[in-house]
Amino acid sequence: MKTSKLAEGLKGSEIIKIAGEVNALKAQGETIYNQTIGDFDASIFPIPQELKDEIVAAYNNNQTNYPAANGMEVLRESVSNYLSKNLGLDYSKNEVLISGGARPLIYATYQTILDIEDTVLYPVPSWNNDAYTYLARNNAVIVETKPEHKFMPTVDDIKPHIQNVNLIALCSPLNPTGTTFDKQTLTEISLLVVEENKRRAIKNIKPLYMLYDQIYWQLTYGSTTHFNPVDLVPEMRDYTIFIDGISKAFAATGVRVGWAFGPSHVINKMKAMLSHIGAWSPKAEQMATASYLNQTEAVSTYLEHIKSELDIRLNRFYDGFQALKSEGFPVNAIEPEAALYLTVQFDLMGKTTSEGETLSTIQEVTSYLLKEAKLAIVPFYAFGTSQTSNWFRLSVGTSKKEDIDTVFGLLRNALANLS
Amino acid sequence: MKTSKLAEGLKGSEIIKIAGEVNALKAQGETIYNQTIGDFDASIFPIPQELKDEIVAAYNNNQTNYPAANGMEVLRESVSNYLSKNLGLDYSKNEVLISGGARPLIYATYQTILDIEDTVLYPVPSWNNDAYTYLARNNAVIVETKPEHKFMPTVDDIKPHIQNVNLIALCSPLNPTGTTFDKQTLTEISLLVVEENKRRAIKNIKPLYMLYDQIYWQLTYGSTTHFNPVDLVPEMRDYTIFIDGISKAFAATGVRVGWAFGPSHVINKMKAMLSHIGAWSPKAEQMATASYLNQTEAVSTYLEHIKSELDIRLNRFYDGFQALKSEGFPVNAIEPEAALYLTVQFDLMGKTTSEGETLSTIQEVTSYLLKEAKLAIVPFYAFGTSQTSNWFRLSVGTSKKEDIDTVFGLLRNALANLS
Repeated sequence: MKTSKLAEGLKGSEIIKIAGEVNALKAQGETIYNQTIGDFDASIFPIPQELKDEIVAAYNNNQTNYPAANGMEVLRESVSNYLSKNLGLDYSKNEVLISGGARPLIYATYQTILDIEDTVLYPVPSWNNDAYTYLARNNAVIVETKPEHKFMPTVDDIKPHIQNVNLIALCSPLNPTGTTFDKQTLTEISLLVVEENKRRAIKNIKPLYMLYDQIYWQLTYGSTTHFNPVDLVPEMRDYTIFIDGISKAFAATGVRVGWAFGPSHVINKMKAMLSHIGAWSPKAEQMATASYLNQTEAVSTYLEHIKSELDIRLNRFYDGFQALKSEGFPVNAIEPEAALYLTVQFDLMGKTTSEGETLSTIQEVTSYLLKEAKLAIVPFYAFGTSQTSNWFRLSVGTSKKEDIDTVFGLLRNALANLS
Repeated sequence: MKTSKLAEGLKGSEIIKIAGEVNALKAQGETIYNQTIGDFDASIFPIPQELKDEIVAAYNNNQTNYPAANGMEVLRESVSNYLSKNLGLDYSKNEVLISGGARPLIYATYQTILDIEDTVLYPVPSWNNDAYTYLARNNAVIVETKPEHKFMPTVDDIKPHIQNVNLIALCSPLNPTGTTFDKQTLTEISLLVVEENKRRAIKNIKPLYMLYDQIYWQLTYGSTTHFNPVDLVPEMRDYTIFIDGISKAFAATGVRVGWAFGPSHVINKMKAMLSHIGAWSPKAEQMATASYLNQTEAVSTYLEHIKSELDIRLNRFYDGFQALKSEGFPVNAIEPEAALYLTVQFDLMGKTTSEGETLSTIQEVTSYLLKEAKLAIVPFYAFGTSQTSNWFRLSVGTSKKEDIDTVFGLLRNALANLS
């Protein structure tokens, strides 16, 4: 053992293993339709021109020295206004904490709320809660969700554990599924948390908090509405830490501007912790985001554009899967609601390839799709589900519209070659 | 207790308390010469124009999506070349880890090397090791250094503890003192670590590591040379984690590009940990820094300029203190060697103000200097020394040359008014 037990025990990312396979095939000259990453191809989805212009202006204005530890005041004000205007949420600038993207804020939430051996409840599939639970040395109650609930947790999933957990980590719209909480489900879960906290208040023990990652909330399609626990159940304000930022809605994953907001006693402690961890957002980008969020017209034009482009891709893929399904192939997809993700199913375990090999694990199914259909997608076990789940995340942030028909051509062949 | 014990126990920053006093006086319309912060006034010290141009070019080139988890390959290559060319250090691109500034890398080093209840040795005064030790739930051996050693630790300070510690956290040039290790001292300490690790290798226990923060190494003045443990004692390569970046030498504290380098088994674990903490450097700034570091002429011109400007300020302050001392005032300063800092002494405890108040604590001395001389500086207890140390850090990164005479006029008066 050459490093800490914590470091030695960190598991490698499943997504990165698949990326290794993808790169190996690319190195052999193959064209791969890589729909694995929760990111954008910046040539297809550049950030808003106005945001770019504001970053350049901030640099020309020498915004190059330390930002405030909790983020530039103008940005916290701008976020506060944006939340008020777009979500009807009332958070002051001092209840907003800026960081270099959403991840440091999730990490800081875990570290700020949870003692060693405390327990986190999170549904799976979900993104990276296993790693944050591990890093905070916590226990986990893992709830495996069901396709008939669009892979969102229900109050019945959570209720049996409610007295034994210290944090419930939720995300909606959900990475990896692209599905969202409906109003009733989120209301029921929120009421359950409020009721549990009444019990804890009497006993004078640490409250049960909810981490609510809504980084994708601006990317909803069709009739889908984004809900949040504080709007539905106002008493949740004392217990909810929201995670948000520009990374996804403005295709700005590399710009590193995220924010959390919540009750000030938690936000202040997260600020103190992050001031040492130092995961600060660059100053020029903070100043630029502050200005940009105030440009209502530009923001709305950009969001209209990016949503329409993502929606087109999601629906073409969805329709393609429905067509394959109606042709009798053992595939399925869940209707897209939000984010960059389509949830797709390949029920191929036990099938035999034209070379006589039987697909006996999801890893083999994933590899088959990659090699035969040139399609790279991420199986849900990479998001914490059981190894036998035959559902996958298909991300469209790097997808070219003109490629989609080609992908389905390859896919149809690959499926037809199985028996 | 509403949050974790770890969060509840975080101490507020002493520097931020002083900043509060400074801001209160400024709000009353006072002009304050604020030499407290380890940062630059960007209107006096802008970042290099070429770096700015490269950032703009990177944004225009849509470098806006996720960077690689360990940093962009071109930047890690560029850093590798820069280290080889300027320090003769041989680290491959895969032994370099990029992050959003130096802090996340220091935090990750502690978390990666140290188990709970492991022991860190660090000298004081030094910057923020107390917080990192606290956050990693470690014990500390704190070595208080002496003015006659320019506040750098010696091998004799460390030797008695060597068998009982897991990490030695060193910084040279040192924040807060602006002084550096001489060749002999650093060699002796390095040999001690190597010898101790031979003992540990036989027993098959975790090695003793050295965190070597050299973020200020390019800012040395006069005949001062920067040394590093690996150059002096090559066997230290297996045990040294270097912290470095553009923040200080290129006045780019808000740009958020830092790097660590060290043995790959540690760097790989730090990478895994930071991929979850997500303290990533913005992509455009990474691409820009990669190009900029290769512009040998531009870099050397900029460093010549910034070093000369900082050196002038440090020497004017130093000369001013020497003049006051020769006039009989109870002040002193240590000859500046590096960084943005001058170490100054105010031996004023027990003195009485013209209003008949006795200065009985360092806090009162600090406040007196702030109110009477309009000079804000940071007492060394904010960097971990005993509360009775009468030494202070004076930072010149925000100093206007034309103000320095005014400061000394005010200071002379304030000192003359004490009896």
